[in-house]
Amino acid sequence: MSVVINARIVAFAVHALAVVASVMLFVWSICYRGGFAWESTNKTLLIFNLHPVLTLTGLVILGGEAIISYKSLPFEKRVNKLIHLVFHAIAIILGILGIYAAFKHHNEKHVPNLYTIHSWVGIGVIVLYALQWLYSFIIYFFPGGSSTLRRDLLPWHIFLGVFVYVLAVGNSVLGFLEKLTFLEKSGLDKFGSEAFLVNFMAIITILFGTFVLLIVYSKSPPSVEEDNNYSYSPI
Amino acid sequence: MSVVINARIVAFAVHALAVVASVMLFVWSICYRGGFAWESTNKTLLIFNLHPVLTLTGLVILGGEAIISYKSLPFEKRVNKLIHLVFHAIAIILGILGIYAAFKHHNEKHVPNLYTIHSWVGIGVIVLYALQWLYSFIIYFFPGGSSTLRRDLLPWHIFLGVFVYVLAVGNSVLGFLEKLTFLEKSGLDKFGSEAFLVNFMAIITILFGTFVLLIVYSKSPPSVEEDNNYSYSPI
Ligand code: HEM
Ligand code: HEM
Repeated sequence: MSVVINARIVAFAVHALAVVASVMLFVWSICYRGGFAWESTNKTLLIFNLHPVLTLTGLVILGGEAIISYKSLPFEKRVNKLIHLVFHAIAIILGILGIYAAFKHHNEKHVPNLYTIHSWVGIGVIVLYALQWLYSFIIYFFPGGSSTLRRDLLPWHIFLGVFVYVLAVGNSVLGFLEKLTFLEKSGLDKFGSEAFLVNFMAIITILFGTFVLLIVYSKSPPSVEEDNNYSYSPI
Repeated sequence: MSVVINARIVAFAVHALAVVASVMLFVWSICYRGGFAWESTNKTLLIFNLHPVLTLTGLVILGGEAIISYKSLPFEKRVNKLIHLVFHAIAIILGILGIYAAFKHHNEKHVPNLYTIHSWVGIGVIVLYALQWLYSFIIYFFPGGSSTLRRDLLPWHIFLGVFVYVLAVGNSVLGFLEKLTFLEKSGLDKFGSEAFLVNFMAIITILFGTFVLLIVYSKSPPSVEEDNNYSYSPI
């Protein structure tokens, strides 16, 4: 039940949206929210700002590029697989650092931790993402399972991977909503330029995730498959 | 790339979670938020409360049951298809009424409309849901497209349907987050019973949606397929 599209072309949309989302994120953090810092007396502005940048560029953008690597990159399967697992590993590390920044910000400002659905789902995302990486590394990379196991588990690898990824994308949108609600309660204009910037970042994030999943659930038209001297197989 | 499960068994989990979510929603609305009304001087409590109940039981719960009907129900294909499209139609009507309640509440309280990502995605959900229903009705029910068209469009019907459904589930979680954030800003205890009730409703909603999609991306083990004297084909 795959849609028939040329994944290489959709991948351009994915890369373009990744650039747009990253630029918006940095403009927001630097021009509207005052920049970044690990140590600062201005807790809300500087330490917190690392949180969305690290989690979004890590889990969502790099994670998305990792997911589509088998279909978006022109290399042979072995190389694509290496890129897939290394990008996911970097995504997890950036995600952990981003979550650390959120906790550091809360602790230094004496705000309680883990009281929102965003933070609960956030913990779920990072734990499940890491577990997904771990069992998949063991089965598909080293030491590697039998070919029957690899084949039978692949639909689960895809379903669970897509599940965690949708949670990560959705949780970022929850984060944007929450941050903007806090700012609006402190007086930010509901229809001002920053409100629109944040809401449009959320929409770009949703579109990015949608195109990633379109590639996951696609197969190439026969003509393209013949042109390529490689065939798609992530196993 | 379908996971192999017995959809009938997962469907029980879906129905059970639907009951749990509905009960939690009514307990929340009635015991914590004061009940329902279309006309009331207590705008926040009574008119608003219709919004989550109508949108969630409509678009998410009834919509989810509609999505799995082909695999969860024991009837012949023609009956399952009728249930699929009628449930979706009712879901859309309840969704429209629910959105109407949110606007009515905003207008009577003189709060601006459509300033949040929740409300933007909400409009997107109802418009796309209705469009999905309309083109699918024309192609798969009346007057009906050619069998090639039906077959070629099916992967798109599934991808776009899943897309809109994930948006609906995610948007409900955004709504819970937003409502709870408003209440907490007005003094509600961040770790009180109501906060936990709302956050757990959000988690039950995510689980419900996940099991629905597990059924979408599943096929039956061969033994079950032989037992049944019908085969799955939504076309
Ligand atoms: C998948 C990506 C993300 C994950 C895994 C994640 C995870 C987390 C976690 C675990 C916390 C709790 C920290 C604590 O309780 O001390 C948190 C807090 C927070 N995050 Fe995120 N986050 C993500 C993306 C974002 C984005 C893109 C934003 C946008 C601005 C954001 C905004 C916030 C805010 C405002 C808080 C503080 C309020 C709260 O605890 O909910 N997050 N995040
Ligand atoms: C898929 C289901 C849902 C859809 C399509 C939806 C749609 C909408 C729309 C279009 C508005 C804007 C009304 C206006 O601007 O006047 C709105 C407002 C609102 N909704 Fe929902 N909603 C859904 C589920 C929920 C749920 C489950 C809750 C949980 C309590 C919720 C909470 C809110 C709140 C607090 C508002 C007012 C603030 C705002 O405008 O964002 N919604 N919703």
